[in-house]
Amino acid sequence: MQFLDTINFSVPLLANATETVDSSMVIKSVLLSLVVIYFVSKLGGELSNKVGLPPVLGELLGGVVIGISILHLLVFPEGSTDSSSSLIMNFLQTTAGLTPEATPQVFAAQSEVISVLAELGVIILLFEIGLESNLKELMAVGIQASVVAVVGVVVPFGAGTIGLMTLFGISAVPAIFAGAALTATSIGITSKVLSEIGKLNSKEGQIILGAAVIDDILGIIVLAVVASLAKDGEVDINKVIYLIVSATGFLLGAIVLGNIFNQTFVAIADKLKTRGGLVIPAFIFAFIMAYLAAVIQLEAILGAFAAGLVLEETDKRKELQRQVIPIADMLVPIFFVTVGAKTDLGVLNPTIPSNREGLIMATFLIAVAIIGKVVTGLTVFGQPGINRLAIGIGMIPRGEVGLVFAGVGAASGALSKPLGAAIVMMVILTTFLAPPLLRFVFPDETTTATLEAASGTSLVIESDVITLTDSQENELKS
Amino acid sequence: MQFLDTINFSVPLLANATETVDSSMVIKSVLLSLVVIYFVSKLGGELSNKVGLPPVLGELLGGVVIGISILHLLVFPEGSTDSSSSLIMNFLQTTAGLTPEATPQVFAAQSEVISVLAELGVIILLFEIGLESNLKELMAVGIQASVVAVVGVVVPFGAGTIGLMTLFGISAVPAIFAGAALTATSIGITSKVLSEIGKLNSKEGQIILGAAVIDDILGIIVLAVVASLAKDGEVDINKVIYLIVSATGFLLGAIVLGNIFNQTFVAIADKLKTRGGLVIPAFIFAFIMAYLAAVIQLEAILGAFAAGLVLEETDKRKELQRQVIPIADMLVPIFFVTVGAKTDLGVLNPTIPSNREGLIMATFLIAVAIIGKVVTGLTVFGQPGINRLAIGIGMIPRGEVGLVFAGVGAASGALSKPLGAAIVMMVILTTFLAPPLLRFVFPDETTTATLEAASGTSLVIESDVITLTDSQENELKS
Repeated sequence: MQFLDTINFSVPLLANATETVDSSMVIKSVLLSLVVIYFVSKLGGELSNKVGLPPVLGELLGGVVIGISILHLLVFPEGSTDSSSSLIMNFLQTTAGLTPEATPQVFAAQSEVISVLAELGVIILLFEIGLESNLKELMAVGIQASVVAVVGVVVPFGAGTIGLMTLFGISAVPAIFAGAALTATSIGITSKVLSEIGKLNSKEGQIILGAAVIDDILGIIVLAVVASLAKDGEVDINKVIYLIVSATGFLLGAIVLGNIFNQTFVAIADKLKTRGGLVIPAFIFAFIMAYLAAVIQLEAILGAFAAGLVLEETDKRKELQRQVIPIADMLVPIFFVTVGAKTDLGVLNPTIPSNREGLIMATFLIAVAIIGKVVTGLTVFGQPGINRLAIGIGMIPRGEVGLVFAGVGAASGALSKPLGAAIVMMVILTTFLAPPLLRFVFPDETTTATLEAASGTSLVIESDVITLTDSQENELKS
Repeated sequence: MQFLDTINFSVPLLANATETVDSSMVIKSVLLSLVVIYFVSKLGGELSNKVGLPPVLGELLGGVVIGISILHLLVFPEGSTDSSSSLIMNFLQTTAGLTPEATPQVFAAQSEVISVLAELGVIILLFEIGLESNLKELMAVGIQASVVAVVGVVVPFGAGTIGLMTLFGISAVPAIFAGAALTATSIGITSKVLSEIGKLNSKEGQIILGAAVIDDILGIIVLAVVASLAKDGEVDINKVIYLIVSATGFLLGAIVLGNIFNQTFVAIADKLKTRGGLVIPAFIFAFIMAYLAAVIQLEAILGAFAAGLVLEETDKRKELQRQVIPIADMLVPIFFVTVGAKTDLGVLNPTIPSNREGLIMATFLIAVAIIGKVVTGLTVFGQPGINRLAIGIGMIPRGEVGLVFAGVGAASGALSKPLGAAIVMMVILTTFLAPPLLRFVFPDETTTATLEAASGTSLVIESDVITLTDSQENELKS
C-alpha cells in the first residue's frame, strides 16, 4: 500500500490500473536504485580519496561497475538495452511481485526518474559552484579565460579535422564532426574536481572555470554550424547569429540584472518566516535561470551557474551555501554514478574485430584531445608563476558535451560506425583521465591541499557559527 | 542542448529520437513544475503562518489553487485529465517548441517524476520526524497510543458502517468500505502540523504520533480484510495473519536491530572522509528500511520513520538533523502541494445534481469522522492535565490513506458513485480542517508557541554551534 499512487481526489475515483504505471513499483525501483547509487558512490569516492585521487573519479568508476559495462544493476533504456537486462527489475520481479507485463513500463519510469534526478544533481552542482565562485574574480581573468577557450576550440578542431582527413582519408563532413567533438569541455567534471582538491578559487581554477563556461557556449555554436553543414551542406547563418546573440545576452543580462535582483532576493528572504525561507527562493531563482538557459538552447546548468554567481554577491551566501551542501550531497552523486553507469566500456574491447579500426582512430583522437587542450594552457599570459599545465589539463574532460556531437553526427548519418566509436572512446578516456591528471599536476599540494581543504572547511564552519548566531539573534528579536 | 538526454556511451550511438521521450523537454517541464510548486508553497505557507495557521495548510491550499480544481498548472494523468489540460504543457508548446505529438509522453514523464519526488518528500519528512522523536518517549506512551489507535479505528468504523446501513439503506459491503475509510489517520499531515507548532515532543504529540503509526498499520490490516471481503465475500485469513506478523516483526525488528545497528552506523560515518559522509549512509539506511516496509506491504514512510527513530539514538543525531533539514525543505513541499493539486474540489459543488446525494452522505461521514476521532482522545488515561481534545483532533486527518480505501472500493465496484464521492469529500474536509483545528486547540500557545518555537530553534542552533565546533575540531585533528 503506497502513498501517492492512489491519491486521486477526482471522480471517477480510480485511474484504470492497467492503463497507468504501477507507481508503487516505480517508487520501490527508485528506492533500490538510489540505495545502489549511494552505496557505490560512497565506496568509490572513499577508495578514490584514500589513494589520493578526487572522489568524483571513484563515483564515476562506481557507476561503471553497476552500469551497462559490468553488473547491469543500473541500466537505461537506450540502444539495445531493455528492461530484461536490468538486475533491479529482475530483483523486483523475484522479491516484490513485479509482473513481467508491467516491467517495461516500470523500467521506463524508473529510468526517467533517475535521469531527471541526475540532471537536477548537475544543476545543483553548478549552482553550488556558482555560489563558491566570485564574479569579480572570474571577470578579472576573463580575457585569459576567453583566450584559453578559443584556442582550446580552434587547436583540437583544426588538428583533429585535418589529421583525420590526411592520415585516415576520412571525408570532410565526418572529419569536421569528429573535430567538433574534440572542442568541448565538461564543466561538470572539471568544476567538481577543482572543488574537491580545494582549487576552485585559485587563479588556475578561475581561468579553467571561466574558459569551460565560454567553451560550453562556443561548443553549442560549433554544433549548430556543424549540424547545419551536415544537413544542408551549408551553414544556417541565422541560427548561428541567434545563438551568439542569445548566449551573450543571457550572460550579460544575468550579470546586470543580477546586481539589481540581489537586493530584492535578500529582502524577500528576510521577510520569509517559515521553513525553507532561504533555500526555496534560491531554488526558484536557480530553476528559472536554468529553464531560461535551456529554452534559448544553452544548457540548463549554465543558468544554474549564473544564478549561483548572482547569489554569491549577497550576504546570504554563507548560510545558503551551508544549506545547499547537504542537498548537493544527496543529488550530485546520482549524476556522476549515472554518467559512469551509461558508459559502455565494450567499445574499448580490442578482441572484437569491429572495434579495432575505431581503436586506431581513437588513439589519434585521444592524443589530439589531450595535446590540443594542454597547449591552450600555454597561451595564458600576464600571469607569472601560474600553473599553465594545470589549466590545460583542466580543460581535457569532454564529458557529455563531446557525446552530443557524436550523437548528432550519428543521427545525421555522417559518421561511420568506427569513427563514432572512436569519438566515444576519446570522450570516455578524457573524462576518466582528467581527474587523476588534474590531481597530479598540483603535486606540491598532496599534503598542503588536504590541510587547505580542511582549513577551508573550518573557515566555512567558523563563519557558519557567526551566521547562525546572527540568525539566532534575529529570531530572538522577532 | 541538454545534458543527459544524449549521454549514451553505448554503440549504436543514439537511441532513435522518435522512440524515446524527449528528455530535454522532460527536464524543462520538471523545472517549470518545481518553480510553480515552490512559489505557491512559500506563498501559501507564509500567508497561512501570518494568520496563525500551520504553514502546511497554506501549502495544501496553494496546491489546490495550481491543481486540477482551479488553475490546471500542475495536473496529473488521472481520471479524465490528459496532457492537453496541463497549462505547463501548453506553455512549453508555445515557448519551448514542444510538439503536440511529443506532449503526451513528456506529460506522462513529468507527472511520474513529480509524483516520485513527492513520495521521496514524504519519505524524507517521516525520516526527519523519526529523527525528532524519541523511541523511549514513544514507548512510554505506547499503551495510551495503542488504546487511542484501537478506539479510533473501532468507533468510526462501527458508527460509519451502521449509520450508512440504517440511515441511508446502503448494503453491507459498501458500508463496510466507507466505514473502513473512516478509520485511517494521515501521519504525514498530523506530524507536520505538530512539528510546525512545536508540539511534536509534547506528551500529546507523542501519543498522536504513536497512535498514527499504529493506526496506519491497523488500517492496512482493515483494508486487507475489507478488500478480500469485497472480492470473494469472505476474509483471507492468511493474508491478515501475514500482515499482522510482518508489521509486528518489522517494527520490533527495527527497534531491536536498530540498537545494534546504531553503533555500526556511527562507526561507518566516522570512517568516511568525503562529502556526504553522514547523510548518504543515513539515506542508504532509510531507503532500505522504506523499501523493506513497502515490500512487506506496509507503507514506505513507516520504514523511513523507523530508520529516523533508530538514528535518533545515535550521537550523530544533531548533525544529521541539521543536514536533513534543507533536504526536507526542498522535497517535502512537493508532497503537500501535490496532494493539494490532486484534490478535485469539483465534488463539493452542490450545483451539480449528481453531487447532492453524495453531499448528504458526506455530511454524515464528516460528522462521524470528526466525532469518532475526538472521542478517542477521551480514552487517554493516567495522564492528568493532558489535552485530550488535542489528541482526538490530531487523529482527524484521513489524508491519502483514506483515499486508498475509496480507491480500492471503487476499483472493486463495491462503491456507488455518490458514496465514493462522499468518501472523497470526507477525506478532503478532514485533511484540510485538521491543521487549523489542531492549532486552535492549543489556544494558550498562540503567543507562547511562537516564542517556544523560536527558542526551540535557537536551542537547535546553539547545539549546532557546538556540533560544528566538535566536527571542526575533528577535522583539524585528522
